[in-house]
Amino acid sequence: MLINANFSQMEQNNPYAAMKRSYLAEHLAMLQRQCTHLNIPALIIVEGWESSGKGYVISDLARELDTRAFSVHVFERDGEEEEKRSFSWRFWTRIPAKGDFAIFDRSSYYDMMNDLSLKKGEVKESIARIHDAEKMLFDDGTVILKFFLNISKETQQERISELFKDDNRKFLITKNDTDQNKHYKKYQAHFSDILNLSNYVFAPWHLVSAEDRKSASKYILGTSIRLLQEGVDRHLGKQKTAKTFIREYQHEATYLQELKTDLFIDEATYIKKSKVLQQEAQELAYALYTNKVPTILVFEGMDAAGKGGAIKRLTKSMDPRGYTVNPTSAPSDAAKDHHYLWRFYNNFPKRGVMSIFDRSWYGRVLVERVEGFATPAEWERAYGEITAMEQELADFGALILKFFIYIDKDEQYRRFTARQEDKPYKLTDEDWRNRDKWDAYVLASNEMIDRTSTTVAPWILVEGNDKPYARVKVLTEFNQRARAMLQGLQDKK
Amino acid sequence: MLINANFSQMEQNNPYAAMKRSYLAEHLAMLQRQCTHLNIPALIIVEGWESSGKGYVISDLARELDTRAFSVHVFERDGEEEEKRSFSWRFWTRIPAKGDFAIFDRSSYYDMMNDLSLKKGEVKESIARIHDAEKMLFDDGTVILKFFLNISKETQQERISELFKDDNRKFLITKNDTDQNKHYKKYQAHFSDILNLSNYVFAPWHLVSAEDRKSASKYILGTSIRLLQEGVDRHLGKQKTAKTFIREYQHEATYLQELKTDLFIDEATYIKKSKVLQQEAQELAYALYTNKVPTILVFEGMDAAGKGGAIKRLTKSMDPRGYTVNPTSAPSDAAKDHHYLWRFYNNFPKRGVMSIFDRSWYGRVLVERVEGFATPAEWERAYGEITAMEQELADFGALILKFFIYIDKDEQYRRFTARQEDKPYKLTDEDWRNRDKWDAYVLASNEMIDRTSTTVAPWILVEGNDKPYARVKVLTEFNQRARAMLQGLQDKK
Repeated sequence: MLINANFSQMEQNNPYAAMKRSYLAEHLAMLQRQCTHLNIPALIIVEGWESSGKGYVISDLARELDTRAFSVHVFERDGEEEEKRSFSWRFWTRIPAKGDFAIFDRSSYYDMMNDLSLKKGEVKESIARIHDAEKMLFDDGTVILKFFLNISKETQQERISELFKDDNRKFLITKNDTDQNKHYKKYQAHFSDILNLSNYVFAPWHLVSAEDRKSASKYILGTSIRLLQEGVDRHLGKQKTAKTFIREYQHEATYLQELKTDLFIDEATYIKKSKVLQQEAQELAYALYTNKVPTILVFEGMDAAGKGGAIKRLTKSMDPRGYTVNPTSAPSDAAKDHHYLWRFYNNFPKRGVMSIFDRSWYGRVLVERVEGFATPAEWERAYGEITAMEQELADFGALILKFFIYIDKDEQYRRFTARQEDKPYKLTDEDWRNRDKWDAYVLASNEMIDRTSTTVAPWILVEGNDKPYARVKVLTEFNQRARAMLQGLQDKK
Repeated sequence: MLINANFSQMEQNNPYAAMKRSYLAEHLAMLQRQCTHLNIPALIIVEGWESSGKGYVISDLARELDTRAFSVHVFERDGEEEEKRSFSWRFWTRIPAKGDFAIFDRSSYYDMMNDLSLKKGEVKESIARIHDAEKMLFDDGTVILKFFLNISKETQQERISELFKDDNRKFLITKNDTDQNKHYKKYQAHFSDILNLSNYVFAPWHLVSAEDRKSASKYILGTSIRLLQEGVDRHLGKQKTAKTFIREYQHEATYLQELKTDLFIDEATYIKKSKVLQQEAQELAYALYTNKVPTILVFEGMDAAGKGGAIKRLTKSMDPRGYTVNPTSAPSDAAKDHHYLWRFYNNFPKRGVMSIFDRSWYGRVLVERVEGFATPAEWERAYGEITAMEQELADFGALILKFFIYIDKDEQYRRFTARQEDKPYKLTDEDWRNRDKWDAYVLASNEMIDRTSTTVAPWILVEGNDKPYARVKVLTEFNQRARAMLQGLQDKK
């Protein structure tokens, strides 16, 4: 019962109507255990008209699931917290962990569905974001089930009056209910547009007739079983046959090799310059705060390139209440249980705040690629996933700057040996092992720069052999680009 | 420079004034590495008059720390999110992980300090909560540093005008600033009271003269070094000499042994009763929601006692958007890095929501005690920590019910062997191993019930040999107590 362009064409037959509920329930429970066992996450989105019985079918579905392996998340109109966050933040921070089920009572569609004043272009833009998010989860192995509960104008009217009589549930009626009922035809056309635009092959909508809630619930149970079974098959199929991996990137970039390694500044200049630049950075950070600009700074680079030192100098005069530094080490068990971007969504800044990442999501195409922690299909996919994510953050108004600090192989050797004597706690065996894969890291870094440097989130290459030079360059670049951003906002006013 | 009852007695001498800043900085950095290495968390609270330079000294301190191992948290007037949470929620969700430093710009003192209308009793009550929280962290090995920045009325006046002239920082001035300056004497007396009441031996206040910000900052650096060194010494001392553990509890409770194990109900009665009770539970859950009561249900009991089944039957007709079930398994790495209560604070319900815990924080005095994962001193301390925590949640308005489902040893054997054939996935080797420690679990459970059953958070013992009987009892007890709670709220109106 896939969605049609026209609601009236929806068929009313329900292949699961004649099945015993207990049979469906057992089958679903068995599949859930299988998903838990195979670490398959499932995302079940229940959309629909107001008062169409979303609560009813969610209750009915939840009843058959193992309470320890599912969670229900309600998406309502944006609250105080959501206003400070980008469009996809709520979605990403609530995605199911591997082996878990998440039921979304609505999803990122909520605001769009309830706003008739949106232009088609705006709807398309929001849907493009949803597409990206759902696609990333699908590619990561998530089974996505999307249901839309459909009822007639008359049924909706009845349900609203029914609710109104129930003191304990009256609070469930909102302005949306009455508004939808009043302008039923307009909403119907609006929903049709949205459903058709977001009816992806990997995550199609299932239109459910909810005139009879019991029947709707059975339909959802049955369809969930079918789709989860497909998900399990897809997973097992994947395991058996290694998918042919097609590599599209043929170019060989040499950005890093082309950097000048002998740039430096003398100490007196450094001390003078950095002090002025730090004062300026402090003022700019305050200005970004008062202008409510969220700022994201990424630092990547070779081991011992001086990322930590550069961050320290950049933030030296900044108010520490306005920024956080997020070191990205090996993923925790919670992070491993989710899509690799999930943990970063948890650290993205609210409006006005600055998040600095000491290493980042680029680990996917650097260390995970080089060490083989991610499959070629996974890291190849990541370039597109990352640029889509950064584009969304930029559209939300973020200033995004990515610094890559490069040192050459000889300089790294000098620093490692110096550390061994001086600060042995900062040097691990892993650092030496990584060094053996120098060329692979350079290759991966060059490709990353080539494929993910965008206008809204550019890579800034920093010559790092001379630490003072690198620090001043980071400060200078930050100041210039923050000033340009603020100027742009000023001009718009 | 410990706090005196009277501000005017504060001494102005600063033993660190003559020391070179770079020396202090290096020393602090070294201690931070040591803390990271030894997994010692540190909590640094900076309180003080408005415009006394908290931001300045925090910046100054942060500058010397490794950016990857500290975070700054600002406590402001309660926002939308805090309104829905208990008093200590914000504090607990922001405590430092093992080996990390957390700097709190103010702390739970904020609201109290800025409210002159509070009665002494109210101040004392809030401070009792803070005492509990700080004490629990201290006992867990956290080094707690509390600074209060003191300035004169004149200096405050100057600082405010200074800020006012700076366009980028003007936003930092709030109503509090002007109000404090206007009623300086009154606030001074108020602060004195608060500081004296919360001047604990394990977490004393350090009163800092902030007339000169640079000097204040040096004083804070120096004092931090001294206290962190003490913390490290305390930690190492603990490691070397096993502390004498004094056991105060002498009573031997036998609640579980006294339960009747032959209680049962026949199937027809069960089906009839449970349906009615579930309907009632659904209505009550809605009523708790509309009355904004946060509800916390704890389920503990022997392995295979039927906790999951009882939860399923209790929630069968409830709206799944109104409750969450939180299974408590072995702690994740993030949980292990924090105080054992931290992970539960992250799952406590907002107003109106129900959180059900399938096993809980009581693991500390059950499995962790029996298996030796917690030291005797740690689990002995836990009884008081837990009742303090539950008292706070109750004062916040929560309905707290704790169910202990008991089955006897023979019944467990029957269930284990039945499972082995029927649902082997639900039975692990660990279950058999736990069974060998049956008597130890019974002893620990009896003591737990004896020491943590309170009026505001009672233990309800459930005879579990007959599953239908147990399920009906859980439903009946929940309904009765929820109804009583709602009636109480009604009466108050």
